[in-house]
Amino acid sequence: MSKFLSDKFSSLSPYVPGEQPKDMQYIKLNTNESPFPPSQAVLSAAAQEAGKLQLYSDPDLTELLKTLAEVYGVETKNVIATNGSDEVLNFAFMAYTDKSHPAVFPNITYGFYSVFAKLHGSPYIEIPLKEDFSIDFKDYLNLNKTIFIANPNAPTGLTLSLDEIREILKSNPDNIVVIDEAYVDFGAESAVPLIKEFDNLLVTGTFSKSRSLAGARLGFGFASEKIIEDLNTIRFSTNPYNVNRMTLSAGVASLKDDGYNKKNAEKIINTRERVKAELEALGFYCLDSKANFIFAKKEGVSGKELYLGLKEKGVLVRHFDKEIIGDFLRITIGTDEQMDIFLSKLKELL
Amino acid sequence: MSKFLSDKFSSLSPYVPGEQPKDMQYIKLNTNESPFPPSQAVLSAAAQEAGKLQLYSDPDLTELLKTLAEVYGVETKNVIATNGSDEVLNFAFMAYTDKSHPAVFPNITYGFYSVFAKLHGSPYIEIPLKEDFSIDFKDYLNLNKTIFIANPNAPTGLTLSLDEIREILKSNPDNIVVIDEAYVDFGAESAVPLIKEFDNLLVTGTFSKSRSLAGARLGFGFASEKIIEDLNTIRFSTNPYNVNRMTLSAGVASLKDDGYNKKNAEKIINTRERVKAELEALGFYCLDSKANFIFAKKEGVSGKELYLGLKEKGVLVRHFDKEIIGDFLRITIGTDEQMDIFLSKLKELL
Repeated sequence: MSKFLSDKFSSLSPYVPGEQPKDMQYIKLNTNESPFPPSQAVLSAAAQEAGKLQLYSDPDLTELLKTLAEVYGVETKNVIATNGSDEVLNFAFMAYTDKSHPAVFPNITYGFYSVFAKLHGSPYIEIPLKEDFSIDFKDYLNLNKTIFIANPNAPTGLTLSLDEIREILKSNPDNIVVIDEAYVDFGAESAVPLIKEFDNLLVTGTFSKSRSLAGARLGFGFASEKIIEDLNTIRFSTNPYNVNRMTLSAGVASLKDDGYNKKNAEKIINTRERVKAELEALGFYCLDSKANFIFAKKEGVSGKELYLGLKEKGVLVRHFDKEIIGDFLRITIGTDEQMDIFLSKLKELL
Repeated sequence: MSKFLSDKFSSLSPYVPGEQPKDMQYIKLNTNESPFPPSQAVLSAAAQEAGKLQLYSDPDLTELLKTLAEVYGVETKNVIATNGSDEVLNFAFMAYTDKSHPAVFPNITYGFYSVFAKLHGSPYIEIPLKEDFSIDFKDYLNLNKTIFIANPNAPTGLTLSLDEIREILKSNPDNIVVIDEAYVDFGAESAVPLIKEFDNLLVTGTFSKSRSLAGARLGFGFASEKIIEDLNTIRFSTNPYNVNRMTLSAGVASLKDDGYNKKNAEKIINTRERVKAELEALGFYCLDSKANFIFAKKEGVSGKELYLGLKEKGVLVRHFDKEIIGDFLRITIGTDEQMDIFLSKLKELL
């Protein structure tokens, strides 16, 4: 830290992304990426666009927003796109939390929410999960605060139903409710249709998981026209050309070729259920994940030691230091071949 | 604006990028893009990287920072890279301006500085240019505030010398001085070597102009290790994967093929000097621009009308409503062919 840094950031502790070690080739099951590359149509679209890189990207994101609106059954004025969904989440924290509008989110969830709150000097409250690691929607009724819920939640993979989300929205009419659907395509129900009923709902999503585009950085948000206007005010005051040309083009191609992504999501779901059954047969307790990862622990076995043992054997999974989940591993679902190696290395450690 | 938007943004007026009309094919001389596409090596690098888009980009930006450090003769710890230089400028406003550290910049300069200051609730002071539109470095001595200077300045194209910048740095040892070098490769002298002398200097740059990568979104900053640490604290609290894979790869290839970019910059400088002479022959007053644009006006001719007349004839240039420069046009330097069309359309209007 330099002596020049503004006091407001003096105690900021940044988000720590999943490790990306470069010492050897790992089987990477630690950052919830897709094991499948994007489709050929996406690669061609991105490559073709490279020839026009001397020109700025479209600050209005016209073609991408139109295609997103078509695929999700909403209007273009209800959509924003960003440099990864972290950016739309950051904009939401900027726009809708402050000293008089604290943020609320579960105590176990995407680790970036608390970082965003601190970054913008907004107070925040963490609501404990139930003992079974699920979110009790009743804890979020009548809060009069800005609510952030990942659905499915990370790193648990557990979901809320649309009826539960509806109750939260209804009882907080003067506050924004953000539903972060990064993992929705692996078995949860999307809240996007609810934006027509509720003017206080923002649903965020990403191309990083089911659409195999983590490295392209593309996220989006659906909401009422007024909310999208707010977020665009922030976007145009931050980085009007926030999404580069190649990614815009890859995103459009990916949406037009969504059958490919859906098929991959199905494969991942099938693999997840198979691996879950095998882990259970090995004595693991697995949450009922609807995401592209499994959150699992084995009684009497240290999560940290398992993580380190697997790393030594060339398999990276994610371990969290937070005590309440310290014995769990979050295991991203890879290809069947990758998961077989994971399972065999795991057995060697038990 | 929704009823939910935080009060702190209620009077925010976003940056307005140069227009990107889609009604017809214009000769675009309005957003200071390069008329030359990136080199074949850059296109290949970007296209090849597309095959790995399912994996997150490197949050440490290792390869790009290493290459930037080599090309600019500094160490890796002195470099940061961002999603366009707007992002590093935004981070600098976040980190180094606040209620007790107002920002200072010229009254005529890159329009985003005042937007960033407002976005972060930082007071700012605009120092008038001299009557000849140049910056008087003496106005920036002993200010005890955070200083932002574009060198060359936009939209004037005029420069400060390194000796003048050195005086500003020396007399403000307790404050950050940001030198924004977006246009430096068209004839100005870079302040990057001064980061070894001054721990309060941040030099920012972009791949958008001389490196033909506006649509890829890639910017960078050079500074003391401590300043880079500050900016990375903000980066990792905002968007750790801020630069996508294809752009990282394109950036490295572009730096390795910098001869191509230098040759293009030379062509643009030659064209600029030729067009400037022709404009002067037509009775225009042109500032002595060291950037990839000319800032020019003709006594007795309305800048707005010239702009509109050129637009009707299919040539886009930039006009600013600010009264003091309302009769000027900012004309980006395109290819010789484009500039010949511009000149002939302009003559039709005079």
